[in-house]
Amino acid sequence: MSVTGPAGFRAAGVAAGLKSSGAPDVALVVNDGPVQAAAAVFTTNRVQAAPVQWSRVAVGDGVARAVVLNSGGANACTGPEGFLDTHRTAEHVAEGLGCSAGDVLVCSTGLIGVRLPMDRLLAGADAATAALAGDGGPAAAEAIRTTDSVAKTVHLERAGWSVGGMAKGAGMLAPGLATMLSVLTTDAVVEPATLDAALRHATRLTFDRVDSDGCMSTNDTVLLLASGASGVEVSAAELTEAVTAAAADLARQLVADAEGASHDVAVTVRGAETEQAAVQVARAVTRSNLVKAAVFGNDPNWGRILSAVGTVPVEQAAFEADEVDVSINGVLVCRAGGLGEPRELVDMAAAREVLVEIDLHAGQAEATVWTNDLTHDYVHENSAYST
Amino acid sequence: MSVTGPAGFRAAGVAAGLKSSGAPDVALVVNDGPVQAAAAVFTTNRVQAAPVQWSRVAVGDGVARAVVLNSGGANACTGPEGFLDTHRTAEHVAEGLGCSAGDVLVCSTGLIGVRLPMDRLLAGADAATAALAGDGGPAAAEAIRTTDSVAKTVHLERAGWSVGGMAKGAGMLAPGLATMLSVLTTDAVVEPATLDAALRHATRLTFDRVDSDGCMSTNDTVLLLASGASGVEVSAAELTEAVTAAAADLARQLVADAEGASHDVAVTVRGAETEQAAVQVARAVTRSNLVKAAVFGNDPNWGRILSAVGTVPVEQAAFEADEVDVSINGVLVCRAGGLGEPRELVDMAAAREVLVEIDLHAGQAEATVWTNDLTHDYVHENSAYST
Repeated sequence: MSVTGPAGFRAAGVAAGLKSSGAPDVALVVNDGPVQAAAAVFTTNRVQAAPVQWSRVAVGDGVARAVVLNSGGANACTGPEGFLDTHRTAEHVAEGLGCSAGDVLVCSTGLIGVRLPMDRLLAGADAATAALAGDGGPAAAEAIRTTDSVAKTVHLERAGWSVGGMAKGAGMLAPGLATMLSVLTTDAVVEPATLDAALRHATRLTFDRVDSDGCMSTNDTVLLLASGASGVEVSAAELTEAVTAAAADLARQLVADAEGASHDVAVTVRGAETEQAAVQVARAVTRSNLVKAAVFGNDPNWGRILSAVGTVPVEQAAFEADEVDVSINGVLVCRAGGLGEPRELVDMAAAREVLVEIDLHAGQAEATVWTNDLTHDYVHENSAYST
Repeated sequence: MSVTGPAGFRAAGVAAGLKSSGAPDVALVVNDGPVQAAAAVFTTNRVQAAPVQWSRVAVGDGVARAVVLNSGGANACTGPEGFLDTHRTAEHVAEGLGCSAGDVLVCSTGLIGVRLPMDRLLAGADAATAALAGDGGPAAAEAIRTTDSVAKTVHLERAGWSVGGMAKGAGMLAPGLATMLSVLTTDAVVEPATLDAALRHATRLTFDRVDSDGCMSTNDTVLLLASGASGVEVSAAELTEAVTAAAADLARQLVADAEGASHDVAVTVRGAETEQAAVQVARAVTRSNLVKAAVFGNDPNWGRILSAVGTVPVEQAAFEADEVDVSINGVLVCRAGGLGEPRELVDMAAAREVLVEIDLHAGQAEATVWTNDLTHDYVHENSAYST
């Protein structure tokens, strides 16, 4: 049911001709209330696409009536003209809905450094407005796909209220050009501040821990809209639980559909002094091309894992190199920084999922970061993207 | 002429059966003096191979008589036993040469997490000692190859003295498993402290700026030995110039022979506040898989370059995203963070070398970091290394 699972939302997805394939490329999500609370998390890249610049300001008051999203062009690095394009898009959609442009958020995804064909985009926005429907969530999810092989949606029911969502992205919150966008919706009755806190908690533990290729995009945006249409007031804890679960579901779908990947890799670091230290060590492993290529080769090459762990500066994570254990798919191949069980005992070919567990023996904190293997298809897809 | 170009050195390379291919795998370099000054730079990885642990201590007094190197096994993550293996190797070579074990440095390269076959290694060391010759430099360079398609050597003549050297590595100072090793030699008359300063200056500007796949190894070692055999006293400036030039030559050879690469990419960042800021920005670009895959596709995808630049935290490099210029092979494809010349004007297919120039317009400092493209062959070679 995607973003229209919760009550109070309509959505649509249409083909506006932004994609040369003719596939759907403009989506619209509208919050019919009774309230229009909104929260957002954006890329921390210093190069920010025009829609990110716009939406960051527009969502600043915690209110949004609608989100218009397009694939087929990121509208990033397009200068003041690109920003005006985004502004025009918001104004155009606002006119159609009879609201203020400041209550229309904009998301774009696609190639960087190319202006959007505004005539097509605005006509597409009109068509989407006309097509808005209470069951339009799946169509909206279709329209935001770029290299995604499937649309990603979620709908989690709670007691009288629910959280829905859609996402696009070929692997991570920060997937570079194959930007990640997500719109989450709920019909719970919540304050904007609670909404914001729940979304930040959720993204920190889910989308932020999906690290397909280590590249951070100019367009990444995660939005959470609340309509209050269920009439059910929920606590901050209840909301946070459901939003985090929905985001985790979508994040896992992104990993499973990462560009050209043949393995999903969960790197869990235990025994860290702090959660942040565990995340740093896990990221060092998930960003090692040598580790990722070895996983592609179904090669339990724990030396590369330990070598990646060793690149983390001591001020970021305290541990002794000769105390670190590494397991791959449950086999303790490295014990205390040295040889453990024979690597031949590890079977990596049997399943798409690979579990790397690292114990630093330096504390009680832990964290898991997901990544994918580095494959021929990744190289192929990413060497041919804009050509 | 490799390491035996300068006077006062003998070297050898032999096949000891460490490599299953039967190719040469044990090298020995001996400094016959009259002095035996030595300096070294090692990997900063917290996981350090046994030979790194040994050599770091052994070279601490600024004196070394010999270096024994092996390919066919990194002797990393091999615990106390692995360290004893390294110690035995040094003692064995020292006996053969009639010197102290503390004056024998050891370097190893190959798979992590596997013990070395000591009987073969020690027999190989004996054979290398017997084969030592004043023209043995090229044979030594052959014996340290792993995935290198060619041996890398250099010899730069100066006024009555010279600098020689050899290196192995498939791309960088910190290439993960395909470790980088280099031995530089000179017959100049210099103090150990001068030698050390010259080597640190040289590695900082050369090997440290070669960043083929962003992975840092457990075994990386660069050694500089001085025999004083020319009788020519040189200034610190003269030595630094020659050692830096020799290291730059070898570093360039490493890039040109990087595993599976089809392009060498020089990323030059100008207009930075500090040299360190320029290096940080350049590294963000050279470590982006999306940029590297685009280069493989001969795709002047400057959006990915700008997106990588934008990931550098402001505390590491001051710049405004909308002031950054990017040129690829001389074409200014991105002006002031936005569209510049048409990307179609860029020809990347014509040459192996690709020049990316980034102007931050934030100062006067600059730096260049080299990398390679991300290719199918890189994935292939690195997914099949240990299997």
